[in-house]
Amino acid sequence: MLKVGIIGATGYVGAELLRLLLNHPKVKIEAISSVSYEGEEISNIYKNFYGVTNLVCETQEEVIKKCEVIFAALPHGLSEEIANLVYKENKILIDLGADFRLEKEKEYKKWYGKDYKFKELHEKSIYALPEFNREKIKEYKIIANPGCYPTSIELALMPLLKNSLIDTNNIICDSKSGATGAGRGLTLKSHYPELNENFSPYGIGAHRHTPEIEQCLSEIAEEKVQITFTPHLLPINRGIISTIYCNPKKNSNEEINLQEIYDLYKDFYKDEFFINILPLGDTASIKDVKYTNNCNISLHLNHRKDGIIIVSAIDNMIKGAAGQAIQNMNIICGFEEKQGLFLVSAGH
Amino acid sequence: MLKVGIIGATGYVGAELLRLLLNHPKVKIEAISSVSYEGEEISNIYKNFYGVTNLVCETQEEVIKKCEVIFAALPHGLSEEIANLVYKENKILIDLGADFRLEKEKEYKKWYGKDYKFKELHEKSIYALPEFNREKIKEYKIIANPGCYPTSIELALMPLLKNSLIDTNNIICDSKSGATGAGRGLTLKSHYPELNENFSPYGIGAHRHTPEIEQCLSEIAEEKVQITFTPHLLPINRGIISTIYCNPKKNSNEEINLQEIYDLYKDFYKDEFFINILPLGDTASIKDVKYTNNCNISLHLNHRKDGIIIVSAIDNMIKGAAGQAIQNMNIICGFEEKQGLFLVSAGH
Amino acid sequence: MLKVGIIGATGYVGAELLRLLLNHPKVKIEAISSVSYEGEEISNIYKNFYGVTNLVCETQEEVIKKCEVIFAALPHGLSEEIANLVYKENKILIDLGADFRLEKEKEYKKWYGKDYKFKELHEKSIYALPEFNREKIKEYKIIANPGCYPTSIELALMPLLKNSLIDTNNIICDSKSGATGAGRGLTLKSHYPELNENFSPYGIGAHRHTPEIEQCLSEIAEEKVQITFTPHLLPINRGIISTIYCNPKKNSNEEINLQEIYDLYKDFYKDEFFINILPLGDTASIKDVKYTNNCNISLHLNHRKDGIIIVSAIDNMIKGAAGQAIQNMNIICGFEEKQGLFLVSAGH
Amino acid sequence: MLKVGIIGATGYVGAELLRLLLNHPKVKIEAISSVSYEGEEISNIYKNFYGVTNLVCETQEEVIKKCEVIFAALPHGLSEEIANLVYKENKILIDLGADFRLEKEKEYKKWYGKDYKFKELHEKSIYALPEFNREKIKEYKIIANPGCYPTSIELALMPLLKNSLIDTNNIICDSKSGATGAGRGLTLKSHYPELNENFSPYGIGAHRHTPEIEQCLSEIAEEKVQITFTPHLLPINRGIISTIYCNPKKNSNEEINLQEIYDLYKDFYKDEFFINILPLGDTASIKDVKYTNNCNISLHLNHRKDGIIIVSAIDNMIKGAAGQAIQNMNIICGFEEKQGLFLVSAGH
Repeated sequence: MLKVGIIGATGYVGAELLRLLLNHPKVKIEAISSVSYEGEEISNIYKNFYGVTNLVCETQEEVIKKCEVIFAALPHGLSEEIANLVYKENKILIDLGADFRLEKEKEYKKWYGKDYKFKELHEKSIYALPEFNREKIKEYKIIANPGCYPTSIELALMPLLKNSLIDTNNIICDSKSGATGAGRGLTLKSHYPELNENFSPYGIGAHRHTPEIEQCLSEIAEEKVQITFTPHLLPINRGIISTIYCNPKKNSNEEINLQEIYDLYKDFYKDEFFINILPLGDTASIKDVKYTNNCNISLHLNHRKDGIIIVSAIDNMIKGAAGQAIQNMNIICGFEEKQGLFLVSAGH
Repeated sequence: MLKVGIIGATGYVGAELLRLLLNHPKVKIEAISSVSYEGEEISNIYKNFYGVTNLVCETQEEVIKKCEVIFAALPHGLSEEIANLVYKENKILIDLGADFRLEKEKEYKKWYGKDYKFKELHEKSIYALPEFNREKIKEYKIIANPGCYPTSIELALMPLLKNSLIDTNNIICDSKSGATGAGRGLTLKSHYPELNENFSPYGIGAHRHTPEIEQCLSEIAEEKVQITFTPHLLPINRGIISTIYCNPKKNSNEEINLQEIYDLYKDFYKDEFFINILPLGDTASIKDVKYTNNCNISLHLNHRKDGIIIVSAIDNMIKGAAGQAIQNMNIICGFEEKQGLFLVSAGH
Repeated sequence: MLKVGIIGATGYVGAELLRLLLNHPKVKIEAISSVSYEGEEISNIYKNFYGVTNLVCETQEEVIKKCEVIFAALPHGLSEEIANLVYKENKILIDLGADFRLEKEKEYKKWYGKDYKFKELHEKSIYALPEFNREKIKEYKIIANPGCYPTSIELALMPLLKNSLIDTNNIICDSKSGATGAGRGLTLKSHYPELNENFSPYGIGAHRHTPEIEQCLSEIAEEKVQITFTPHLLPINRGIISTIYCNPKKNSNEEINLQEIYDLYKDFYKDEFFINILPLGDTASIKDVKYTNNCNISLHLNHRKDGIIIVSAIDNMIKGAAGQAIQNMNIICGFEEKQGLFLVSAGH
Repeated sequence: MLKVGIIGATGYVGAELLRLLLNHPKVKIEAISSVSYEGEEISNIYKNFYGVTNLVCETQEEVIKKCEVIFAALPHGLSEEIANLVYKENKILIDLGADFRLEKEKEYKKWYGKDYKFKELHEKSIYALPEFNREKIKEYKIIANPGCYPTSIELALMPLLKNSLIDTNNIICDSKSGATGAGRGLTLKSHYPELNENFSPYGIGAHRHTPEIEQCLSEIAEEKVQITFTPHLLPINRGIISTIYCNPKKNSNEEINLQEIYDLYKDFYKDEFFINILPLGDTASIKDVKYTNNCNISLHLNHRKDGIIIVSAIDNMIKGAAGQAIQNMNIICGFEEKQGLFLVSAGH
């Protein structure tokens, strides 16, 4: 059994990692940590673990010492130190925070307001989106797990961008996420009577996932990709829908052939266990991916047949965070990729 | 007191008209009708009217006979007959259905699959969006009340289009509506366990509000406007958010000045009681317009400052239906325009 | 116009008072106060007031000085001081907090852990449940507005207790309230992902409304009434349902005659504008009273016909707080009792 | 691998059985049936199964022919015929409907309005609540799986009734269930805008689970138990909370010792994997059992310490239906009882 640990186990993502790893047949959770709850049983903080596990929150050092693979689910700015310690021990870090996602320090500085502390570690890390760069991931020990919105958008656009089929200078990504995406921290925005029966965008033109999405899409397209990204907060617990608008490369004035695009997607993702390209006519929805590691994608045209609309659905806590992290662990550790992730949505 | 009546009083929009008109100081609801519930007390069908009104559903003919202003809240295809009868009686029809919204029969045929029965009546009707064509409305007796999505989009774009400031060939309108918009008819999509904790787009590239929006925006812009419109179903009861993406007229490669746009909007709507242009930095949300006749609009740029994002919020049942219909009645009948519509949202 | 003011205007109850009073034809809101937001516009804190009012939060002293009737919506322990000041000025205080609800200081001490500061003021205050003691209320200047749960329970049991028809030593009150009842303060319990799709009781055997309910029911019954009260938190914004179980006075071994009880209730409440006794066979529900000052009551028997079940529905923010406070103001000030409170629920 | 099949696979309970059985390591789903959707792929009806299974709905006969264990998830009145066929084939039927739950035909007739067709089969069936009669279940081939409300109530009261500690002539069971409990059939009550933001009891004094609960509790207590049962519909998808009020056997006028009751419960259920007795002070809630086969129970006293309040939480679709059915299969087939049921709630 692989010894794994979770740093930041009392945030929503940390707790979700714990929940999924408890059912993973190849791992044993050796230790978990929490700065706020050191010494407390996790089942005392998350009552859903009552009767399930007796794990007690320890220090980050204990987690690193006891485990072979360490998951970190922390606010940005805290993972570099941990990466440094883990790297010295020659162990594997799967970081669910933002610290290792952006390649250019300049961009990190611009969007997160901080400098890198350990520049050399960034050379040794990889942005790990399995369906894009599965083979490369195996060579790394510092894994930057993609953000939730980016995952939903990157998987949706990959086949078109890889094949240079669309304009890359203004792709509109209108994304909507459930409330767990904002975490366990109390805010007025997530206060029940304020969010319930409400809906609105937030962080327009300023969300920190924007450079991550542009970076990954540009890498996929092998050219500069520019997006407009608007996140919205949904009055539901889990799930992201990204509705993505793009246009074919110019000079083609003909109607778009949706069947061709569909065939391309089906072929592109034919070996991917977690990606479902829905039959033409169907529309991706949150309920069908909730509590799974799947990404459901549906393809559409606007009413003039001159614009492509892609709808992508994931569970932000699983494919958008904990599940993808475990998928990355499976890849690195040589387990079957879907191990511990054969999750079927209940539909409601 | 003005004698008013409601045809189709047992649908959600009809019941909302009834609710609002019961508190209107200048009108008396003389009769209501319902094909399905003829002879039944409305308070037996909508228990929220228990103890409030004893109105009984009569026939459409009775409503037309007894009332001076007739509201019709019916599925498309049923209002032309009623318009014919009302027009003969020289009374006023405010139609909340789709029959009189499209000017070109060809478009109606294309999107609704039907021919016009009374072509001449369409000459005598007007698409009545008060903030756009208030003065003209007064001259008509057949009033086409705008659709819910169109209202949210048209009000949001009017200042930019009136001033020819944006590209008109691909405006993206990503709209999200609460479930009352789909009406009282039972469908699996609106079955509680299916919609709750779910979210997805629907009718992509095919929603019947598309030609209505393009027609009105083109009239405002005095040039052809092309949109891409995607509606989504929100797991809430009421409200629409439209997130609208547009670009300045080409040749301007500079950063957009958001303050100028804001000033334009503030000035454009300075005399409009129901339109709030939110301070820059704020974002329109459903909770602040719920149960009101207001449209809240907020203005934003994307992160490159080269694209404009407009967020528009209304209550689909009020400004998007019953409230706007009463606003139109107030205009035609010479009442103060906000009469019966001084509604303040509770915020939750 | 009567000059009224609100102390504690930035809590949920204070904001609801403001919303309702803005539409009251006989009053002018002269001043509002908030300790946390002194100097700020209320529309900056509650965006639903944007474009509606320019009121700025002042000090409590200003409110007392400027107004004839003062509403206080504060946490317990803060209203006595205000009552003292208001009383000296010979003005009227309508207190929506708990400080003046319990007659016996001992009980207050036991449940709230504090002594009275101004004992003599308690002699001069009244627990004001209009349907119970309307006439007396007119003689007082310190008004204790009933709690939300108590209102729903007291109105439901009054006809039976007044007529000594039920056992008074163990009435079960199983109540369920929407989340606004817990206020605007951030807690994990009201954090959206924790409350959404969740439900549970809280404060079992320890909720502070318990002695208030027993006191009022005992006064109604003119004998000691003992209840078991369990509140639950519903994942909705507004509304309370109390499901109340009681038994006929002993020695009667016959089946209960529900029609007789129904007739009693109809007669008892025949002149009450805000109380609806639903036809036998109907069941009170939150949606029909939401956003109104009504209390809907339905009457039932258990399957053996030997136990009575009463279901009572109110909007916790209106009949359970702000609306009842305005009703009390109307009574004291000689306005028509339903003035400003002719609110019709939309049903959804 | 055990060959299992599902009759009625396209109802909510049937689909949930399918979902759980797909992850059960000891079974293979050999066939499923649906009268309404014969010949259709299940993934076409429940999109959550897209990419997961290619099972096609066949006839009931095919299911019985191909499988060793047959689950039936049908409306009442349809399982007897199936039981007859299954029994002839000497196979095992686990019936999730009501046909075999009541022992007395008279009671079935009274509550369901039908006679038994195959009286002798009822002798050969057992009401299978594993924590109550695990050993006996192994001897039967027709298994009546308990109803959802009954499960939550019977598990909550068993330790007290087994030990004759409480009055058995009026136990109040105030239960609240999520909307999946009402199934996939469209009704106005489950129409999204009607149930959302709403809450109310239903079927007061008339719910068909009443005689089932009384029968099972009486068997546990070995004396006649009488309950008052009131179900309520919650605006959530899954979960039941039962708040249960009972009193100690008379003649004891002392305060109840809650610690003793707690110790009794802990001991009574000490070997039960799926039952959690929460620490005193905690309260059972739906979020902690959602998507699991667990029953969480918390113990409380009223404020006078003279009445016991038990709170019991289950997932109505799992412990209240599909999960308990699989638990019963595990028992009968000699699998580890928690096989396929090691489900951990996410808490949100």
